[in-house]
Amino acid sequence: MKSSSNILSLKSHLEAICGKENVFTTEEVLKAYGSDHTEDLSFPPQILVKPGSTEEVSAILSLSYEVEVPVTPIGALTGLSGGALSVKGGIGLSLERMNKILKIDTNNMQVTTQPAVITQLLQEEVAKYGLYYAPDPASRGTCSIGGNLAENSGGPRALKYGVTKDFVLNLEVVLPNGEIIQTGANTLKNSTGYNLTQLLVGSEGTLGVITKAVLKLLPLPKHNLLMLVPFSSAFKACEAVAAIFNAGITPSALEFMERDAIDWTLDFVDSPPQLEIKEHHQAHLLIEVDGNDQEVLFKDCEKISEVVQRYEADEVMFADSEAQKEALWFLRRRVGEAVKANSIYKEEDTVVPRFELPKLLEGVKRIGEKYGFKSVCYGHAGDGNLHINIVKADMTDQQWSEELPKGIRELFQLTVDLGGTISGEHGIGYVQKGYMDIPFSKVELELMKKIKKVFDPKGLLNPGKIWE
Amino acid sequence: MKSSSNILSLKSHLEAICGKENVFTTEEVLKAYGSDHTEDLSFPPQILVKPGSTEEVSAILSLSYEVEVPVTPIGALTGLSGGALSVKGGIGLSLERMNKILKIDTNNMQVTTQPAVITQLLQEEVAKYGLYYAPDPASRGTCSIGGNLAENSGGPRALKYGVTKDFVLNLEVVLPNGEIIQTGANTLKNSTGYNLTQLLVGSEGTLGVITKAVLKLLPLPKHNLLMLVPFSSAFKACEAVAAIFNAGITPSALEFMERDAIDWTLDFVDSPPQLEIKEHHQAHLLIEVDGNDQEVLFKDCEKISEVVQRYEADEVMFADSEAQKEALWFLRRRVGEAVKANSIYKEEDTVVPRFELPKLLEGVKRIGEKYGFKSVCYGHAGDGNLHINIVKADMTDQQWSEELPKGIRELFQLTVDLGGTISGEHGIGYVQKGYMDIPFSKVELELMKKIKKVFDPKGLLNPGKIWE
Repeated sequence: MKSSSNILSLKSHLEAICGKENVFTTEEVLKAYGSDHTEDLSFPPQILVKPGSTEEVSAILSLSYEVEVPVTPIGALTGLSGGALSVKGGIGLSLERMNKILKIDTNNMQVTTQPAVITQLLQEEVAKYGLYYAPDPASRGTCSIGGNLAENSGGPRALKYGVTKDFVLNLEVVLPNGEIIQTGANTLKNSTGYNLTQLLVGSEGTLGVITKAVLKLLPLPKHNLLMLVPFSSAFKACEAVAAIFNAGITPSALEFMERDAIDWTLDFVDSPPQLEIKEHHQAHLLIEVDGNDQEVLFKDCEKISEVVQRYEADEVMFADSEAQKEALWFLRRRVGEAVKANSIYKEEDTVVPRFELPKLLEGVKRIGEKYGFKSVCYGHAGDGNLHINIVKADMTDQQWSEELPKGIRELFQLTVDLGGTISGEHGIGYVQKGYMDIPFSKVELELMKKIKKVFDPKGLLNPGKIWE
Repeated sequence: MKSSSNILSLKSHLEAICGKENVFTTEEVLKAYGSDHTEDLSFPPQILVKPGSTEEVSAILSLSYEVEVPVTPIGALTGLSGGALSVKGGIGLSLERMNKILKIDTNNMQVTTQPAVITQLLQEEVAKYGLYYAPDPASRGTCSIGGNLAENSGGPRALKYGVTKDFVLNLEVVLPNGEIIQTGANTLKNSTGYNLTQLLVGSEGTLGVITKAVLKLLPLPKHNLLMLVPFSSAFKACEAVAAIFNAGITPSALEFMERDAIDWTLDFVDSPPQLEIKEHHQAHLLIEVDGNDQEVLFKDCEKISEVVQRYEADEVMFADSEAQKEALWFLRRRVGEAVKANSIYKEEDTVVPRFELPKLLEGVKRIGEKYGFKSVCYGHAGDGNLHINIVKADMTDQQWSEELPKGIRELFQLTVDLGGTISGEHGIGYVQKGYMDIPFSKVELELMKKIKKVFDPKGLLNPGKIWE
């Protein structure tokens, strides 16, 4: 961390670039930009700046590069891995003023957007033209496209439509030294040079600052149906997941919730939906199908109903109005918050090939018993992405800080052994960086670190992330 | 190029690694491995080796790295940009013995394969389990998965299902110094470190040798319908393309063929299909829809028929048997060869956002007139990927070698101005490398070259490709 006087000497330069009203040094503001949705971390920047254009971002990075001050790009601060926290101090670069949708190109089914546009807003705007942007993190009402790009966010629709990376055609990026590049072209196909676009997506703001994105859109599906399926065994619920796909159906969402996740969320939210949850229901699958033909969707639902019966499902509940659908999705989206409100927690974002999900769940519980932790699991079962919320409950502080990391290590090792990896959609950021030796060999990590050095030879952009 | 005696001194070492029967130095063999489907290029390696395992590839690359001899990975030699030609001599590394499908994982809908498996064979094998591998280059009967990965191949189904990169979950790669890495995990989602997988796909064998791939599969669509639509204007045909998508339909193929392309192909193939082609038909669209519900597909076709009428289409011809479908696809897949058999040619692989296609086509003809060349255009109109075959016809040798490159430069500049780029699915390889300054700035090219250096500090793997 640079000394405060050094940093503050930059203030007038930053003000000259962005205007006095966009540079902040008060403790209150800095503190607000030092936390996201990851546990209770707090790493405020030493100075906060809010550029309004690519040129301003470029000028800030030229300056910080010259004087060798760290810069941390900041999106909507909804991240779950601490990726946007200024862990080395320096300049906090909030993109929040770059919040315009620049062009909705209906002819080419593309949208060009600045990074700070809220994901749900972008979805709603393109929907007005019958177009669909599918990536759909639980935080879609508050997270921004730039953050989604940085972390390669997913969400419940990824199993059918893919994650953020699958919707990115081209990026405008400011490099750590202030140079501006385009990563690709606005085309669906591209075999021209190395895929810088995909290298930037998911690089967690460590290679460059994304200032503009061209995203692919799809025709908006006309209909969807939603069903909630209770199971008397969480493992059977997980087993049913692969069976649904193997029956030839690709749902547009297939979410898994353990009993505690549902119970805690029903307690947590105001006016919860009326659900008939029985004593023996240990888990639920929330299953959505979408498409343009209602009849086909009904047939799909019938088929799904048949499949889940083979896994000891109880009676399937269909959402038979838009309001009911909304209530169920609202419930699902609030699970994370509800669990977090219940206890001190750590959330892991494990992902495995979907058929391995029951083995992962079994392992989570087994490892939990061994290390004395309780977990509440939920997530995007359709793509094998299980969010494991480890709750502190009655663990001692010593168990929490000394034993738990060993348990997490064992859990991540299991995930990798099952063909999976340690983050499906949250990124490594700050909190998972101590575990990168599990999915990657030294050679692989060394390659990534050298790529980082190509983009950022001085190591100034979002330092202290991804690796120790 | 190393002197032949230097190279030949490696022979016994290579034989010790792969066995005597897998190392070749006769002129006949070397010549056969020195040409692909790109124009009439010939760049034989100085020695050819056919490893049978990842370990053998690793041992070969360790050796070549130590003695600093260039190595060119060679797939099925169906490439259209000269990417697998040994332009700097050295060792030709044919992967052809690594031709096994290692595992079809129906539960997780994945296939693990060695690189030399023929694309069509892989498609047919997974189809036996009701699974679908969509990327489908015209050469699918002879090209291999490894080559598809190297060039990020596309084909007619890319507009709905994506290109090769969209089906890759994880790769095993041997680095130029012989080290073996995994690029990712076998999961649909992954936010763990930089996306080495997508960096490797499309890198044309310049960063590492792909020895194993884990590919995503989809449920095999149960039905498809195919229609051939004649237009009295090639430009109107191109205009109809975006209109079909804007009507809310995503075809599984949408191919464009200029009149000459069809005529020449009908002349070229044995027993051509019976088509009623009228004097005024200037272009055709070949349109396929697929899905699980035949009724829905019929409705889609009706809607498409309505849309194309607005663009002066003549009567739509439906393929009403599997044999007719096969015949139409056979015709389409042979267009490239037919055009090439007709004249000395150069093929460009331009791609633009699909609504810009009429502007591109108009530009091709205008630029052709200016520089005195004739072109036959066809390709994957649904994703804006236009193959422009420039035929020598009655151009003088001097025009061909001196004027034409200026014309191509102007054409590529137009492509980029329209939001597109210079290769959609063939790669840059050897023949397009002089044009990389058009889509990319110096800074962007410099980044790519530095990434190359991270993987291949001695510049030994597939040298002389992508850049001058």
